[in-house]
Formats: sequence, structure tokens, C-alpha cells
Amino acid sequence: MAAVNAHLAAMYESYLFSEVDRRVQAYRAENPQKRLLRLGIGDVSRPLAPAVVDALVGAAEEMGQAQSFRGYGPTRGYPFLLQAIIEREYEPVGVKLSQEDVFVSDGAKTDMAALQELFAPDAVAAVCDPVYPVYTDANRMAGRKIVLLPCSQEDGFCPPLPRERVDFLYLCSPNNPTGAALTYAQAARFVDYALENGVALLFDAAYSAYISESGRPKSIFEIQGAKEVAVETGSFSKSAGFTGLRCAWTVVPRENRFGLNALWARRAAAKMNGVSYPVQRAAQAALETPGWEQSRENVRYYMENAKILLGAAEKAGFCTWGGKDAPYLWVKCPDGMSGWEWFDVLLQNKGMICTPGEGFGSCGKGFVRFSAFASREETQEAAARLSEG
Amino acid sequence: MAAVNAHLAAMYESYLFSEVDRRVQAYRAENPQKRLLRLGIGDVSRPLAPAVVDALVGAAEEMGQAQSFRGYGPTRGYPFLLQAIIEREYEPVGVKLSQEDVFVSDGAKTDMAALQELFAPDAVAAVCDPVYPVYTDANRMAGRKIVLLPCSQEDGFCPPLPRERVDFLYLCSPNNPTGAALTYAQAARFVDYALENGVALLFDAAYSAYISESGRPKSIFEIQGAKEVAVETGSFSKSAGFTGLRCAWTVVPRENRFGLNALWARRAAAKMNGVSYPVQRAAQAALETPGWEQSRENVRYYMENAKILLGAAEKAGFCTWGGKDAPYLWVKCPDGMSGWEWFDVLLQNKGMICTPGEGFGSCGKGFVRFSAFASREETQEAAARLSEG
Repeated sequence: MAAVNAHLAAMYESYLFSEVDRRVQAYRAENPQKRLLRLGIGDVSRPLAPAVVDALVGAAEEMGQAQSFRGYGPTRGYPFLLQAIIEREYEPVGVKLSQEDVFVSDGAKTDMAALQELFAPDAVAAVCDPVYPVYTDANRMAGRKIVLLPCSQEDGFCPPLPRERVDFLYLCSPNNPTGAALTYAQAARFVDYALENGVALLFDAAYSAYISESGRPKSIFEIQGAKEVAVETGSFSKSAGFTGLRCAWTVVPRENRFGLNALWARRAAAKMNGVSYPVQRAAQAALETPGWEQSRENVRYYMENAKILLGAAEKAGFCTWGGKDAPYLWVKCPDGMSGWEWFDVLLQNKGMICTPGEGFGSCGKGFVRFSAFASREETQEAAARLSEG
Repeated sequence: MAAVNAHLAAMYESYLFSEVDRRVQAYRAENPQKRLLRLGIGDVSRPLAPAVVDALVGAAEEMGQAQSFRGYGPTRGYPFLLQAIIEREYEPVGVKLSQEDVFVSDGAKTDMAALQELFAPDAVAAVCDPVYPVYTDANRMAGRKIVLLPCSQEDGFCPPLPRERVDFLYLCSPNNPTGAALTYAQAARFVDYALENGVALLFDAAYSAYISESGRPKSIFEIQGAKEVAVETGSFSKSAGFTGLRCAWTVVPRENRFGLNALWARRAAAKMNGVSYPVQRAAQAALETPGWEQSRENVRYYMENAKILLGAAEKAGFCTWGGKDAPYLWVKCPDGMSGWEWFDVLLQNKGMICTPGEGFGSCGKGFVRFSAFASREETQEAAARLSEG
């Protein structure tokens, strides 16, 4: 019999959202009249900006004409998009990059799952807890040892440094689900640690557009020395509503001391054929004027939602984190409840759907995540129900 | 220092197309007036079908309206596309599938590179020689042992069965670069071998739209018992000109005896977020009337090119393969030349660009590949120059 990947076969399926769905369906069956408020989702709800749609349509029409048709594009992305990313996302924060440092892909999840392939099978990965489960899943699938970095409310959910030797370490800032964004000092502590110990940092900046408080880097490359040890993934999903279009990028500076730039380029050439041309044109439009301002309008909309939810949760006396630099509010469950217990209470008593913290790691137990991606009207209704305590 | 993937670091870069490019640039610099005929590329040149462009534009506009906007889609693809694939690609050849057997992705290359992740690190892969280099590269990167199956002109480039124990085996039919399409008997021999020996077959059917001779299966699932042991990847790249749009699919039947259906689903859920919605709508249009007929018109155009090239090569007395069930002509170099030597002669004497067979494996030495994807006019000119011998 063909020998299958035992690590993959042994993985339990992530039942989080299917279990959420199961409980919601059961509630709905018993309460068909009740209106449900969906604050569980991590998906955007606002449509694409007009300039982005125009670019998508224009590129689609180009593909229908012989003189403007494009087949295979550059594996790492078209220069027009690489340049737009550099100029809009990095130059304003003082980070100088060249096009050879940037790689376009079809999603931050794809890249965050694939980066571990650059390391040895017996390399050790460090992953924060709680966090987006992709980092853990990709390394478990590869049979790698994973060191968890427990994040606590006492530290504002800033991860601790590893106590044992690791080869690479994932950081997610602003964090999904806690909403915590590293300060310059906190980020510098990780960069210094990585420089001193020869550890690679894999920095997930998918939510950087939501940072509003000062003193927090939008890019890890704002920190001195980071180009030597860090790689960073950015995304159009939450900043420009591309969850259904699929486009992201990863910066792997040529200065990377582990040689990851050449390895990532070689992996891309061997395993992928680039990103859809119309989608790359749409991404370019999301970075250039006027698409940038139009997309930022959506970011402000979601952050206004977050502010409304945060105000309501504080009014009701809940302990809260996030909601200022991320479209997520992380709330401690009252009365010592687990995330699943409070999930049930909120569903039964208030018709509200959230995400139990347990779904993001064992340190998420006792918390739930509220998303700010719903409509304003839904968010206001949820805030009213929440503020009653 | 972070331990990197030594297998990846040790891989030589695929220099084939960059070396082709280097030699072409050098020729161009010395002969700026000469017109070059490009028969090296494996990329399509005809624009997308009108119905496909319409679908792309329509979906782009949907994404700009709140009521029709779509965020994350199903990881494995939208049901409308899964169903269209089943009905257009499989029902006509008598293969019954359910939507749970089909997974949409952003490219056949992506899937063909990723399928090896379903097998154990010490599983052994069998790969034909010569063939599309992705199968070998992906397994070398994972540090796996690879058994090469040498294909010879005496066998019409049909691969032999492995002589030693392997866990999974790649088949590419119609083959890139030789153009050989397995007959029913040849395909059945592999399925029977896989059933008897517990070997998984990874069947690359990216060029199935080009099969014109009778007696050749378009899908491996036309062979009795194949659902138990085979998975198959199909693509919109060459059948509908999607090389720049990016869409493909892989069929992993639930009947697979190694449990690959569940493993592939779990991998997809953990590592990807689905394919761009407008691209999936475009793919659906390429399968439905009238997009299907419009796209097939392009396939016929390329196959007419292949026929023109084949006629010219035969007239000149070259030994040829392919060109009947694939958009590639595989030609033995005259006078015992290597592929690179004949490449240079064709470039210098006839201003023609081909691809040296060595680029597809050591058994490709002494052959070159001509592509039928150029324009008619370029193809006719190439045929005229080639028929002079």
C-alpha cells in the first residue's frame, strides 16, 4: 500500500466553524422568527471599491483581444504590482525595498502555510497561542516539532520569547484573534532575539491596515536589522476586500541571512505559475489613487464598527482587548465561562454569534472573538444587546 | 542558525528557459534585422473566448455591488463550477463523479506539485523521463527518492512499469514534451499494476483537450478500477487559454483506497482559501455553451498548427512523434546532434526557436520540442523553413 503522510492523516479536522454552524442551525430550527446577529465571521462584507472593479473589468477585456492578451505572467508577480506594493505599503513607513524582495501570491494563507517548506524537516517552529491556526496546521502536517508561546492577558497578549531553541517563529500583528498589535519596543525585542539567536521571523501583517494607535509598526522592516532575519506577508483581503478575489504578497529581503530569498524564489518557480492577471490589475488599483482612498473608506467603516462594539462591551463591564488596531474584539467570558459556554449563552439569550477562543489555541479558552466585519446596522443592534450585560 | 531545507538549497535552478533566452538574446544582438519564429513556448497565444470574457466582466461587476459581493468561497470551489466540470469533462466519457470528488485550484502545476504532500516523507515516487519537470522538482524539494521511468522512441515514449517498489507514480498523457497519449491498453496496464501493487497514480491530463486519435482515454477514470488508485488533474490553461487567469481541478474519488480524498480535502482546508470568484465564473463559462465551442475553436487552431509543423517535419525526413494528440511535436535531432546543438543550428540557420529535449530529463537528449501555440502565420513560415531540411 502506498505510504501516506501519517502526520496529515492523524490531524483532527478543524471543527471550529462547522461546530459553530451546527449550533447556529439548531438554534435557528427552534427559533425560526428570531433575527441572528453574525459577529463570528472573519470575512469582509463591503463590496470592492469602484476603481478596483474598473481595473478588473478592464483587464478582463484586455484578455479577450489578441493584441492585449496575456498568458503566463512572471511567477513572482508583474512588476507593476510589485512596484505599487513597494511605493504604497513600504515607502511611507521608511522601508526601502526592491522588486526582487517582493513576491505576489494568491493569499496570505497560502504563503503562511508554504513558508515552512524553506526549513529543514527537523527544524523547530515557534507559534503564539492563541493565533490563526494555519501556522500550526502547516507544521503539524510536515511532522515538525512546534513550541507554543502562551500569550496571557497580563501581558496584553504579547507573546513571550521562546525558552528553548527554535529555528523559526511566527508573529501575527495585529493579532487574529486578540487584536493585539506589537509596539515598536515589543517588535524590536523579537528582532533582537532573532538576530542574536539566528532565528527566522515569519511576520503576518495581514491586518496592518487596521493599526490606528501610534507607536506600532505596520511592517516588521521598520525595526532595525529586521531585513536580515524576517520575512513578512501582507494581504489585500482585509485592506481592500479581496477575500473572494485572492491576492497577497510576501517580502523576503535579499539581505536575509538564511538565504531565504533565493529559496523562496526557487520554490515559487518550481511549484506555482503566478497569480491571475486581472486580479493583479485589481490589486494595483487598490493601491493607487483613487482605489486606495475608496478601500480605506471600508477599513474606516469596519473600525467604526469595532469602536461601537468596544464601547458597548466596556459599558457592560466586560474585560476587552483589541478593537483599536484590528477588526476583532477579544473579550473575557464572564463568570468563569469557557468560550463555548458563553457562545451558547450569547446565542440563546441575545441571538448573537461570536467565535469561541478555544478555536485559536488552548490559551484562548475563556475568551470569545467578536468580528467588526458585519454591517453597521447589525453591529449597532449587537452593541445594544451586548451593553445590557 | 535556522536550519533551512537542504534539499531545496541543493537544487540547481532550472536553467532551461533562461538559457534559451540567453542564446536568443545573443543571436538577436548580432542579427537585429532577422525575424525570429518562436516555437519554444508552451504558452497559448489566442485571446480568451468572448463568453469567457463576458463571465469575467459580469462577476467583476457583481463584486462591486453590496447585494452580490462574495467574500471567501468554498475552499474546494463553488458548486456551479464543480458541477460544470463533472457534466462537461466526465459525463461524456462515461465517468460518473460527485461534487465531493472534485477540487478546484489555481493551476495544474500547483496541484501536481502539492499532491506529494499526501505521501510519507520516505515514500518513493516514480516519474517518467522525459516529462514536465514539476513532478521531479516537488519531490526532490521534499527529499524523496525518485525512480525514473525511461521512455524510449522504440516504445513510442510510453513509460515502462517500475522495476522496483514505488508508492506513487506520475503519468502525463498526452505527454509534455513528447506528445504521446496513452492508448486504452497502455493506460489499463498502469491501472492494473497500481491495483495489484497498491500504488497511487497521479494522472496529469492538462492536455486532454488535444486528443484527436481514437482509442485514447481523455480521463484515467475511463479505465476499470481507476477510481480506487488514481487521482487526475485537469486544467483550463491549454483548453481555454487560462494560462494568465489560473484555474484547474483535481479529481480525487471518494473510492480512493489510500484515503486520499479526505487527506486532500484536509490539506486544502488548512493551506488555501479557494480560487478567485470571477475566475471560477470564467471557467464555468468555458465549459458551458457557447464558451465551450468558442474555446474548442482555439484548440482546433493550435492543432492545425501542429499538423502543419508535422507535415513539414515529415517532408524534410525527420523522425517525429506527437503533434496528433498534443500541441507539441517531438523531433529527433539529425546527425546525432544533442538538443542544444540542434537548437543552435535552428536558431543560427533558420531563425527558429525550439526547446531542447534535455530540459525534460536525460532521456530527452537528442530531441527537441516544437510548440504549436504560435500564430498561424508564424507556424507556416516555420514549416516552410523546416521543410527545407
